[in-house]
Amino acid sequence: MRPSTPARTDVRLRGFADLATVASAQEWVDRTARQLPALEVATAAAAGRVLATPLTAPADCPGAARASSDGYAVRAADTIGASAYDPVALRTRDPSGPLGPAAAALVFAGAPLPPDADAVLGFDAAQPSGDHVDVFASVAPGAGVHRVGQLLRAGHPLGAAGRVLDARDVALLCDLGVERVSLVGRPRVRLVIAGPKGGGPRDAHGPMLRTLVARDGGEVETVEVGAEVHGALGRALRSPGPELILVTGRTGTGPDDVAPLALAEAGDLTYHGLNLRPGGSAGMGVAGEVPVLLLPGDPLACLVAYELLGGRFVRRLGGRGPALPHPTRELELRRKLVSAVGLLEVCQVRVVDGGVEPLGLADSGGLAVASRADGFVIVPAPFEGYAPGARVLVHTY
Amino acid sequence: MRPSTPARTDVRLRGFADLATVASAQEWVDRTARQLPALEVATAAAAGRVLATPLTAPADCPGAARASSDGYAVRAADTIGASAYDPVALRTRDPSGPLGPAAAALVFAGAPLPPDADAVLGFDAAQPSGDHVDVFASVAPGAGVHRVGQLLRAGHPLGAAGRVLDARDVALLCDLGVERVSLVGRPRVRLVIAGPKGGGPRDAHGPMLRTLVARDGGEVETVEVGAEVHGALGRALRSPGPELILVTGRTGTGPDDVAPLALAEAGDLTYHGLNLRPGGSAGMGVAGEVPVLLLPGDPLACLVAYELLGGRFVRRLGGRGPALPHPTRELELRRKLVSAVGLLEVCQVRVVDGGVEPLGLADSGGLAVASRADGFVIVPAPFEGYAPGARVLVHTY
Repeated sequence: MRPSTPARTDVRLRGFADLATVASAQEWVDRTARQLPALEVATAAAAGRVLATPLTAPADCPGAARASSDGYAVRAADTIGASAYDPVALRTRDPSGPLGPAAAALVFAGAPLPPDADAVLGFDAAQPSGDHVDVFASVAPGAGVHRVGQLLRAGHPLGAAGRVLDARDVALLCDLGVERVSLVGRPRVRLVIAGPKGGGPRDAHGPMLRTLVARDGGEVETVEVGAEVHGALGRALRSPGPELILVTGRTGTGPDDVAPLALAEAGDLTYHGLNLRPGGSAGMGVAGEVPVLLLPGDPLACLVAYELLGGRFVRRLGGRGPALPHPTRELELRRKLVSAVGLLEVCQVRVVDGGVEPLGLADSGGLAVASRADGFVIVPAPFEGYAPGARVLVHTY
Repeated sequence: MRPSTPARTDVRLRGFADLATVASAQEWVDRTARQLPALEVATAAAAGRVLATPLTAPADCPGAARASSDGYAVRAADTIGASAYDPVALRTRDPSGPLGPAAAALVFAGAPLPPDADAVLGFDAAQPSGDHVDVFASVAPGAGVHRVGQLLRAGHPLGAAGRVLDARDVALLCDLGVERVSLVGRPRVRLVIAGPKGGGPRDAHGPMLRTLVARDGGEVETVEVGAEVHGALGRALRSPGPELILVTGRTGTGPDDVAPLALAEAGDLTYHGLNLRPGGSAGMGVAGEVPVLLLPGDPLACLVAYELLGGRFVRRLGGRGPALPHPTRELELRRKLVSAVGLLEVCQVRVVDGGVEPLGLADSGGLAVASRADGFVIVPAPFEGYAPGARVLVHTY
């Protein structure tokens, strides 16, 4: 339509005359997204980050004997002969110093033992009474005690490469004195919001993708919204910095759909048009050194294309597994789920009485329907859907 | 031991002569943690936040007719009589303007229709050929079209109070033009890290609790580590600001356990000592106007006490449900799980062949064991554990 853009026809044909499969697009993601280099990060700031190299315990844990359960720290020899009929009285002491003979100190699990204690007596075998405790049973040396290195030997594996560190891991590492850990870099993503056709100033994509990129371990570096789209895309695509550029909107085949053309001009438009519903107008390629995903302007199509391709890219860059991060449940389908043969469809579903029912067709309803969904079902291209009673894998929100 | 602290004996007796139940401590949390007031926040920044008031659709969606599926937008009347034997040829047009007679425009789901189109023909009924498409079937008016308000009527409920907004919600609200939403305030938490007895400069609690508080929708406002503990606690407890103070360490009954005493002096020590394992030396109360939780210094005991009490407090303040946020699965126990009658025990478990096995006793192993766990099982106080083969509810990490 524009005499100045003769490449448009090629782009259009390339995109939609022959739809690429989602599988081939995902293979492109897997080939193109190279895990970022490792960097040293303070352990205290490592929660939610990904280990780049395997971690091992730097020292024995505990480094000194400590109580493994609540009770009274004692010298086991002091309890010999104790019974319910003939209790032994031990003076109550604080656990911070030596017990001395015939004494007991209240301790809680994890606390260091008095230096001369060698056992912890459970509450069921002891009864406090004024300044002493009556002990009703003897205890063996070592009972209720964690010996040096009993929990963790120096060199014991603490986490394989690729492990996402959680609050427990970080606390353990801090506790063990591991001050810095080697983590996979955090992927930086640039968003170029070209916006849906006829869209106003409202940007739904930026907030949505910022949230999803963070979920997948990346961070949105900059967001460029609107402006003169073709030029902005060209500039953004050629400007170095991020590990991935996500362009949303203008991905179709109409005269305003400048995104594929801009990518083709800035580098290579490897795929445009996928056998995906919704989200089929997605595309991908490389601008200079930077991989670029083109995500549809329709917010749900954008979400679906991000989930299947963008999230996978970010997770790969950041050393995470490529699989979708949604918890899955296998549930029985309560109503027929209709899908087109030849398209991989992502159908929003709702949980009803322990089963699921589809919320219309994959391409119907957009976000207004998806935000009522409890999850989604992916129907592979060869299937025309599933009959009621089929068990389907639900990716839950 | 210190002549200047005569209150110590009272505090100690109050704490552990009579252990409070976890249930009564949780009731105290539920009584004390009042939901924070609502505030208006930009929708784009609302992901992960909690709705304070119910939201409804501000306008019909779509506001104008649009394609509900990919295909060719047509005027239905132009397809009357079309069949595989007698296809109707329609000129291909762009969808941005009126079609005019005998024309079709490629559209994708969600795109606005040309103003004179009233149906979308699926690809199965149309074959592109040069500058036109051959149409093999007639289509009814309205097919493949979302009418004004079909997806969402103005006033339709979009989310109840208490809903945690996710990427979908935020995108939908932005798309609908909802610029600000009423959210529950984000709880501010102050950490006072008194540290475990004999602990060095390593702070495991701060990084762990910062991560967990963020997970529960709060934010850690300040962290005070170490220093002269009794004085620091007194100052921290009396200084206004946060909605909750978490003190870690020094919660036991020894001479260094200044936290309960400091809380008793700064306000009220409501409970000290719970029937909880690990975590039994936890305490709680109010300093001035600010609720305070005392969490044990042992990192796993601290984690458990935070999960059962601190997280609940933060979630209540922030308008979330009190329940634990961990996904649950009912799994079969592969080995005996031993627990003390009279104590609520939190046992770390590992998933093995689709069942679970306990990683030792609840109080054994600390974080070194917990960081190998896949989840935990809560054994209520009346139970002495579960036999192999029992189905147990696993809270998964």
